[in-house]
Amino acid sequence: MTELDYFFDPKSIAIIGASDRLKFGYTTTKYLLESDFNAFAVNPRKEELFGHHTYKTINDIPEDIELAILIVRNEYALQAVKNCVEKGVKGIIIESAGFAETGVKELIDIQNEIVKICKDANVRVIGPNCVGITNFNNNFTTTEIDFTKTYKGGISIIAQSGVLGNMYIDWGSSQMMGFSKAITLGNKIDVDEVDMLEYLENDPDTKVIAMYLEGTKRGKELFNILKKMTKPVIILKNGRSDTGSNAVRSHTGSMAGNDRIYDALFDQNPVIFRVNNFYEMFNIAQVFSMQELPKGKNVAIITSSGSLGIMTCDLMEKYGLSLAKLDPKTIDAIKAIIPSYVSIGGTIDLGPSMFETITPTLEAIALDENVDCILLIIAIPSLPLENLKITMAPYFRRLKKISANYNKTCVICVFGSRWVFEFLNKAANKHNLPLMIRIKHAIKAFKMMNDFREYKEKKGFL
Amino acid sequence: MTELDYFFDPKSIAIIGASDRLKFGYTTTKYLLESDFNAFAVNPRKEELFGHHTYKTINDIPEDIELAILIVRNEYALQAVKNCVEKGVKGIIIESAGFAETGVKELIDIQNEIVKICKDANVRVIGPNCVGITNFNNNFTTTEIDFTKTYKGGISIIAQSGVLGNMYIDWGSSQMMGFSKAITLGNKIDVDEVDMLEYLENDPDTKVIAMYLEGTKRGKELFNILKKMTKPVIILKNGRSDTGSNAVRSHTGSMAGNDRIYDALFDQNPVIFRVNNFYEMFNIAQVFSMQELPKGKNVAIITSSGSLGIMTCDLMEKYGLSLAKLDPKTIDAIKAIIPSYVSIGGTIDLGPSMFETITPTLEAIALDENVDCILLIIAIPSLPLENLKITMAPYFRRLKKISANYNKTCVICVFGSRWVFEFLNKAANKHNLPLMIRIKHAIKAFKMMNDFREYKEKKGFL
Repeated sequence: MTELDYFFDPKSIAIIGASDRLKFGYTTTKYLLESDFNAFAVNPRKEELFGHHTYKTINDIPEDIELAILIVRNEYALQAVKNCVEKGVKGIIIESAGFAETGVKELIDIQNEIVKICKDANVRVIGPNCVGITNFNNNFTTTEIDFTKTYKGGISIIAQSGVLGNMYIDWGSSQMMGFSKAITLGNKIDVDEVDMLEYLENDPDTKVIAMYLEGTKRGKELFNILKKMTKPVIILKNGRSDTGSNAVRSHTGSMAGNDRIYDALFDQNPVIFRVNNFYEMFNIAQVFSMQELPKGKNVAIITSSGSLGIMTCDLMEKYGLSLAKLDPKTIDAIKAIIPSYVSIGGTIDLGPSMFETITPTLEAIALDENVDCILLIIAIPSLPLENLKITMAPYFRRLKKISANYNKTCVICVFGSRWVFEFLNKAANKHNLPLMIRIKHAIKAFKMMNDFREYKEKKGFL
Repeated sequence: MTELDYFFDPKSIAIIGASDRLKFGYTTTKYLLESDFNAFAVNPRKEELFGHHTYKTINDIPEDIELAILIVRNEYALQAVKNCVEKGVKGIIIESAGFAETGVKELIDIQNEIVKICKDANVRVIGPNCVGITNFNNNFTTTEIDFTKTYKGGISIIAQSGVLGNMYIDWGSSQMMGFSKAITLGNKIDVDEVDMLEYLENDPDTKVIAMYLEGTKRGKELFNILKKMTKPVIILKNGRSDTGSNAVRSHTGSMAGNDRIYDALFDQNPVIFRVNNFYEMFNIAQVFSMQELPKGKNVAIITSSGSLGIMTCDLMEKYGLSLAKLDPKTIDAIKAIIPSYVSIGGTIDLGPSMFETITPTLEAIALDENVDCILLIIAIPSLPLENLKITMAPYFRRLKKISANYNKTCVICVFGSRWVFEFLNKAANKHNLPLMIRIKHAIKAFKMMNDFREYKEKKGFL
């Protein structure tokens, strides 16, 4: 058991500010009280919540409490923290907002007093101004998560912002991405990204970390922990511009710092992969979590749209990847089975014949030693798919086998309606194949994963 | 009536290669024969298709034919074209692939012979290697479109690639984007982007043109028509890299050309707005089609997520826009109604209180002369939306009024699950407000639209 485990798998929980009013806190209260977790509701104005006895203060609870979740208004937070310390909790998650990030002196003072009290008592704190923790491995959450709509997997998230943290999960889950832990840190008065990177490095269920950062107060420690890590960290750093960096201050009260310092910190570090937006962050994390690292940077492109094949070539050149030079045997094998109107130049453009020709094409490519990665681009309008009753299972099953048996890193890109996306995504997910709508993200994933393999080989991790 | 109108609203149509087999051509044949268009099926091996009499050749049809659609295999195309010319058609759309783009000499020769025959007979040709035309104003199509799932609107599309053309419509329609005309040009042996830009400039239903281009054979004419245009053209030019430009050759048989020449051609032209991918192209086109041009570059940001506000500031700085300096009266008005934990620095970060505070916030901003554009960023997880039974209609109705009455260009960005997207998109669409998932595209739209206004003012179009 690692330190901080009580944030992810607490033996007992007090929800301070528990509520059955339809507002912030409602869903969390209801979920935890009705779950198998040992949760207690604290609310001085209620006798009972969702059929569970309610306590006036945390000190009235007749059991030891490991974790306290604070969802009270900011003016009640200080007293609640004092009570928690008195009760002897190990950790507190303060979800309430309205502290240092407002820039108001009295509220900054309250935050500072909370810091002092907890430090003196050796109680660890997450927040304030966050939504805490979600653990997809045991379905524990301190926020609004509907576990019937989420998937377990190897991606863990560290986010500063609470709203954004939930957004990530919502969006990722609707793409069927699998998560392990989601952590939102808010104003970071105690627990921060350094602690959580250490935790996730030791978490057996985490394969890749997606981190959204507005700034750090512990640059040196961040640098040191990153140097020790063996897991990839896909990072989105905000506040690059002057306007943005001013906005950071009023958001979580932290300093964005000079962006060039972060660039230097991150550029030096081979486990860090920097991205430009959160869709890119998760799409790339998904490939890291689902596929093995490629053995080189030669990508074979199989496409049903020549135009998209061309766009991919442009992107590959930009990101330093190579279009795989197919073995003449591979080309002959493919030419033997495709109609005369199909072009096989650099990319393998199967056109609308894709569903008749993809299987033998994949077989030929699987055997080609010059191919390290396979990008399958499926651009098929809804109507033929619906009318022709095509099922994707056999194609994706084959691709999965090739990925596993022939050591090729595979990604599927899909274009078209939401109907097509969902249809293909379900099939891909069943075979653990990453599928996305952005070719650029696939290309960057190949590039980053190849860089990561080179680093691991050099360091002897692989 | 403009020349080329017979491609968009033909008085009579022959479908050559009509088919009831579940393959390419099936949907088009069925749709046109069962529609109110005056369509005839040509297929030498069939007596009847979908209950309609079938003709052995186009010459057997007892009426004049304005437009012929060819969906035969490449080896039958030349004879079919000869028959069409003999019949006296005005236009031919050759959808069949397998000509110059294959690089095979015999197939190049066939393409050249088709060019000669049609030129001599003064018959205009679209294609080959395309899916032709869709007209959303009269529901005419030569490809697989389900008009029950599309929307009428001001965006027209010119695409080289057939598959991609349909993809665009599929994707855009699933975002509820409204289209006017969709044109795919394929190998462009006759009709090309120059003709179609001229057509769309004169088309009263087209407000903005989204164009995907792999290359042009008529650089000078393209330059000249663009100089005369008064409508914005959002352009995606492919084949920028060497690898990509080789791939262009084997796709539609055209030369990508030196990308710097296109850069120069496009940069000189104030109606041209260059984008990097097709999502960006359509999101930007959507703002052009739904909103008036902004009167300046000062953007007010209202957000439920501070982090996303910060990201937006970074992007605004990058694209030369300014965060609107709110009038002190506006700030006071907003501060009077928001809870103390809400930050109002540069961006207006309403946090989870958004739904209680957005209406008075919008009212205050509407009156602020320093605000030209409003970006509303809604990042709300599914659960509170579902639980709190929030309806968006009143907020969006208000925003629409502000857009119309106070001359502010408005865009909504949304983050979260697909459920949230669809929920908000439906409401936004009802009030003609553009909604998208990418902040960057909204920012670029503001920037391009402001540039376009400046150009129009200078030229006196406005």
